[in-house]
Amino acid sequence: MNCEVISIGDELLIGQTVNTNASWIGMQLNLIGFDVNYGVVIPDDKSAILNALKISSERSDLVVVTGGLGPTKDDITKHTLCEFFQTTLELNHEIEDDIITYFSARGLPILQTNRDQALLPKNCKILNNSKGTASGMWFDKEQTVFISLPGVPYEMKAIMLEEVLPNLRSSNSNASQLINKTVKTHGMGESFLAEIIKDWEEGLSDDKIKLAYLPSPGIVKLRLTISGSKKERLNQKLDYHIDKLKALIPKQIFGLEKDTMEAVVGNLLIEASSTVSTAESCTGGSVAKLLTSISGSSAYFNGSVVTYSNKSKEELLNVDSMLIEKEGAVSQKVVEKMAKQVRNIFHSDFGVSTSGIAGPGGGSIEKPVGTVWIAVASKNKVVSKKLNLGYSRERNIHVSALSALNLLRLELVNN
Amino acid sequence: MNCEVISIGDELLIGQTVNTNASWIGMQLNLIGFDVNYGVVIPDDKSAILNALKISSERSDLVVVTGGLGPTKDDITKHTLCEFFQTTLELNHEIEDDIITYFSARGLPILQTNRDQALLPKNCKILNNSKGTASGMWFDKEQTVFISLPGVPYEMKAIMLEEVLPNLRSSNSNASQLINKTVKTHGMGESFLAEIIKDWEEGLSDDKIKLAYLPSPGIVKLRLTISGSKKERLNQKLDYHIDKLKALIPKQIFGLEKDTMEAVVGNLLIEASSTVSTAESCTGGSVAKLLTSISGSSAYFNGSVVTYSNKSKEELLNVDSMLIEKEGAVSQKVVEKMAKQVRNIFHSDFGVSTSGIAGPGGGSIEKPVGTVWIAVASKNKVVSKKLNLGYSRERNIHVSALSALNLLRLELVNN
Repeated sequence: MNCEVISIGDELLIGQTVNTNASWIGMQLNLIGFDVNYGVVIPDDKSAILNALKISSERSDLVVVTGGLGPTKDDITKHTLCEFFQTTLELNHEIEDDIITYFSARGLPILQTNRDQALLPKNCKILNNSKGTASGMWFDKEQTVFISLPGVPYEMKAIMLEEVLPNLRSSNSNASQLINKTVKTHGMGESFLAEIIKDWEEGLSDDKIKLAYLPSPGIVKLRLTISGSKKERLNQKLDYHIDKLKALIPKQIFGLEKDTMEAVVGNLLIEASSTVSTAESCTGGSVAKLLTSISGSSAYFNGSVVTYSNKSKEELLNVDSMLIEKEGAVSQKVVEKMAKQVRNIFHSDFGVSTSGIAGPGGGSIEKPVGTVWIAVASKNKVVSKKLNLGYSRERNIHVSALSALNLLRLELVNN
Repeated sequence: MNCEVISIGDELLIGQTVNTNASWIGMQLNLIGFDVNYGVVIPDDKSAILNALKISSERSDLVVVTGGLGPTKDDITKHTLCEFFQTTLELNHEIEDDIITYFSARGLPILQTNRDQALLPKNCKILNNSKGTASGMWFDKEQTVFISLPGVPYEMKAIMLEEVLPNLRSSNSNASQLINKTVKTHGMGESFLAEIIKDWEEGLSDDKIKLAYLPSPGIVKLRLTISGSKKERLNQKLDYHIDKLKALIPKQIFGLEKDTMEAVVGNLLIEASSTVSTAESCTGGSVAKLLTSISGSSAYFNGSVVTYSNKSKEELLNVDSMLIEKEGAVSQKVVEKMAKQVRNIFHSDFGVSTSGIAGPGGGSIEKPVGTVWIAVASKNKVVSKKLNLGYSRERNIHVSALSALNLLRLELVNN
């Protein structure tokens, strides 16, 4: 099965937007065993679209087209598709009703341009968009399947996940399968990790498993890939090696697949019937933001104080001004006091705190940019840790927040 | 001048690597007035490369090819280029010396695969790589220029900046230029915006300016594009229309080009020598996180409380429990009280607050998911606003945080 991804949009060609849609679609198709052989980016221009569709129909079995389906004038894809597939637009009453519901649910008036999104090509199968008003379209033309999706990433992803992939997967069920499993680690850089798991990595070749290191700030993902025809057997092999890895680096592994640190910590808090609150300085609310990104987090997250100034550390958290003066705001004693106090103020089982120098300003020889203290207080105990991070503000804030959650995770796991 | 960017690499097609190279090259070419009309991604495969080169030579004047020039076996580009340009490889002694110097300077042994990088096509102009050992190549074939570059981003960028762009710039000094300006708006969906600025949009055609709507959660960017030969005159035309737009939707426009809401608000606070603190419920720390993402924000950000539970609203913000019971936590009165109180607690000039139902749980018929109240308190005044957002938790949190900052921005601009 030869697949091709066509991305429509001037903004992609001039580099104003990075083409993450094409990467994501390529990854999804690859995961269900489809070969992606071509990626094409073209401008919002009728002849360019027609030309690309023509070339793709000659060389590909499946063509996914994104972009150009919004309500405004600069979108010309739908009319061009009609020309290519020799059809016309007709009003789809079901979709029109959905659009009306979408707008009235938000208390917004409906414009003609919104209604026009229910005008769809006659000879296509309509793909439902659960996140917006631009429907996806599925065309069969001779031996090629064409799928047209909006360019807005979360709408495109919703239609792919809910409509396109399940359909493609069932049509491709007899082919050799590619199975990936991903192990997520925190707290150790890529090269250190590679050194520690060297022998384990060598053992993977016995089962023809490929390993990829996928580092991002604060997290290294390890992706194991295996292919073959018997799904169950392949999964067993992957699980066997993942179990061995877990024994090797138990502190570093916080989850599998799509697990996030904040979801893992949230589940552990629910299991322990415990609550948490945070006192943040350098992370500026990022720990709270991560925790509350999880739906249902109000069951365990009581609240947070972001004490950016020393005065607020004194007034809101009752940290002694003498202590701050003597030790500095970025110090073990201050961060431990912050954790204890925020636990008390919010009547929580756990208090989590951060204090550090996110940069780029504020560093000294003794405490350079990237020096961060984190702490977790529970009923009878306070644990704390010093991090030495780098020079990027964004990265320092993010990695500090992740590290604070991991410290809480280890407390929850060990108790 | 029609330009095309060809990216070679399996990792791009299966989404393991996002194609940032193509975006960067597109942006650089666009900045010096070249139109990028096609982007193509193909696998490390001889026939795919030959086929793409053939198509590009028929439709483009300039073709930039990246990828496939490293020392390992999977790179086949160089041999394929020789076939396409009907030439053979020859050892370039100057480049060989550079490679030897490169390795000995790093105290590394030289492998044959490294030496082989000095084997280069006879009929190309060699482009020096100051950051690595894979040279770039410049081919002239009939009316088309082909440039082949390594795929490693910092090597590719070095050759582009040091060798390719200066050359192209001088060859294109009389050609027409393409200039983009982007206006960033908040608070109005794409279709409403289009309706309100319809007449203005029609007026753009007088100056041959193209308009594109680029929506993302909470923000619609409007990109204006003009081309011609006199840069100053083109900029004047764009500025003229942007000024008219500003008069039309003054509340919605928060910035231009790379401006972010949080940076714009930060600058306004600095100009006004004012400070801010936030009391967040449904946004869970996101407003604080946005504000503190800006380096130097400690000059105006005093701190935040995230009062997720009703109890914490009462205890930390002194919101009367009777008021919460009567009006509900998601109400105008409660959110206004929160803003006033957090302004007092942190001794700030402005207090910003949010309270809403982020979802997916917690909604009712009266207050469905996506109902959010935001408020801004200043010395003698409190303003508040009700938002009706959608069903996605992540989006609701993000758009609420942006809206709260925009409400603060409008207060800062109007005072």
